[in-house]
Amino acid sequence: MDNKLRRSADGIDKGYVVGVDLGGTNLRLALADGHGEVLARWSTRTVGIKAPDEIVKLISAGVDGLAAQTGLGRHDLLAVGVGAPGVTNAETGVVIATSYLMGWRDVPLRALLESALGLPVSVDNDVNVAALGESRTGLARDIRDFVFLAIGSGVGAGIVLNGRIFQGAGWTAGEIGYMLLPGLPEEAIERGRPGALEGFVGGEGIRARWKSLWDETKTTLPMDITATEIFDHASAGETLADAVLYDSARTLAYAIYNMALILNCPLFVLGGGVGMHPALCARTRKILEARGTRAVPKLVISALGEEAQLIGAIRLAMDTAIAHGAVRL
Amino acid sequence: MDNKLRRSADGIDKGYVVGVDLGGTNLRLALADGHGEVLARWSTRTVGIKAPDEIVKLISAGVDGLAAQTGLGRHDLLAVGVGAPGVTNAETGVVIATSYLMGWRDVPLRALLESALGLPVSVDNDVNVAALGESRTGLARDIRDFVFLAIGSGVGAGIVLNGRIFQGAGWTAGEIGYMLLPGLPEEAIERGRPGALEGFVGGEGIRARWKSLWDETKTTLPMDITATEIFDHASAGETLADAVLYDSARTLAYAIYNMALILNCPLFVLGGGVGMHPALCARTRKILEARGTRAVPKLVISALGEEAQLIGAIRLAMDTAIAHGAVRL
Repeated sequence: MDNKLRRSADGIDKGYVVGVDLGGTNLRLALADGHGEVLARWSTRTVGIKAPDEIVKLISAGVDGLAAQTGLGRHDLLAVGVGAPGVTNAETGVVIATSYLMGWRDVPLRALLESALGLPVSVDNDVNVAALGESRTGLARDIRDFVFLAIGSGVGAGIVLNGRIFQGAGWTAGEIGYMLLPGLPEEAIERGRPGALEGFVGGEGIRARWKSLWDETKTTLPMDITATEIFDHASAGETLADAVLYDSARTLAYAIYNMALILNCPLFVLGGGVGMHPALCARTRKILEARGTRAVPKLVISALGEEAQLIGAIRLAMDTAIAHGAVRL
Repeated sequence: MDNKLRRSADGIDKGYVVGVDLGGTNLRLALADGHGEVLARWSTRTVGIKAPDEIVKLISAGVDGLAAQTGLGRHDLLAVGVGAPGVTNAETGVVIATSYLMGWRDVPLRALLESALGLPVSVDNDVNVAALGESRTGLARDIRDFVFLAIGSGVGAGIVLNGRIFQGAGWTAGEIGYMLLPGLPEEAIERGRPGALEGFVGGEGIRARWKSLWDETKTTLPMDITATEIFDHASAGETLADAVLYDSARTLAYAIYNMALILNCPLFVLGGGVGMHPALCARTRKILEARGTRAVPKLVISALGEEAQLIGAIRLAMDTAIAHGAVRL
């Protein structure tokens, strides 16, 4: 089967869009032209800000800030696309649940923003939005089936099947943090707590594992270092760090292997601050290839990097503009 | 999200179709009217018959036999749908690979049959065809996302997403026999050999496990019994049989749990001679429900049973007839 899509549309004929990357720490906006070219950026901190109407005010301020920077008015804007940090009904734009940081439950973010901005808005889960970015402008461009793995403090997957984000019946497809794998504890985990897989593959889990294994007779490194620092030291040959990297890579390789079997998916794109570490990718690839009697998926590090979500949000806005009558180029 | 589809079309306006269930042991055909109602059946043994042209001759003889039974001619037939026991390119109708029993590699079954029968033919993998049957007339009728699990001597999954069979980039989506799970050996397995999961969940594997655990001090049952016999004895309280059932159910529950996480899929339909055993379903459901802090999928035994593939093949033929100009009711 040909796993390439026909070339995606390159943009819209006129007008501008805004992409919004909403996180528990930062809010980032970008204004782009009809080709998705970024013309201006705006950002602010969101630490401690939980109320949906406060977030809506910040986004409105950001849209006005972008308009001011570019000399555009709101009437030049066609649509807004938002990546939200939680389970999201992409049809209605309701954020069903976010992590404890924001604590949202059933927040009608699309309706709130459309009312505040007077513009068409689309909202989807941030990992899905990043996957959209990868499928339109990244290394997965025009690839029909692939998985984007966002590995930061936790782990999530954005699944693209037949060229479209696959959302699942309850909008939680790709919530792989709870996947059961050899070497992971089998106990059921309370809702809202990180899954066992995240204990080995997520940044917070890796940091905690390092702490639990740390012993001054085993390493000269400090007890409190980050996942990426651990991977740096592993690359430099530090024994304990290398053991932690190996466990992370093995667990990640097994998760990818299972997804590749079920979905028969030929490409996995690694994103997020932890996921993009070259040592993790190289080691994971080696473990996957050692299973090589069956088709092993290709593993690449995202070329969009920290921009994947913002770029995806711009693409979501472009799709929304087209759905509202803008002409596809 | 509403996980129901709008009601499927109920059939085609006139004419008849033939469904073909091709296996390594039996070849079964059925002739149905435009509503999918079976009017006649024909079957023969295929043990030892490997050559594609011999299979094509048998299918042709079956079609003629069905026509004779019903007093119809070939001109009354609109299309033929075939479920083939191997990886199949459903677009071209080429059977890419079957198990060692038939040993097929890249057999253009659709082209061979169209040439022999002078009728439009579609060919797909037998588990996918059974899933199609379940989605049109079984317990998954009109359910948008579900997984059909065929558990006989081996294990395979037919995945229906957004109301359509999901095939995967290389036509092998749902080949879950190699899934990595807690309690299963991690070693890579040679291509063509059964996966570790099948050692616990497939009929042959369960039988072999019973033999390896059997000891006359532990059980009064014979050493050589089938998987369903083991499950019968487990239901009756036999200790060793119950231990074997538990291991099968646990492995199956974990496989379903992982698929449900990745696909966010709310329904799993158990089919196949081993998969339809009520004790396996009940125990698997119990293990799944014990993980109950997250959404647990519904688990049901196929109502179509051994007919799933043949009924699916009839539905595939009806779709093919519509694609070739028959009018949908």
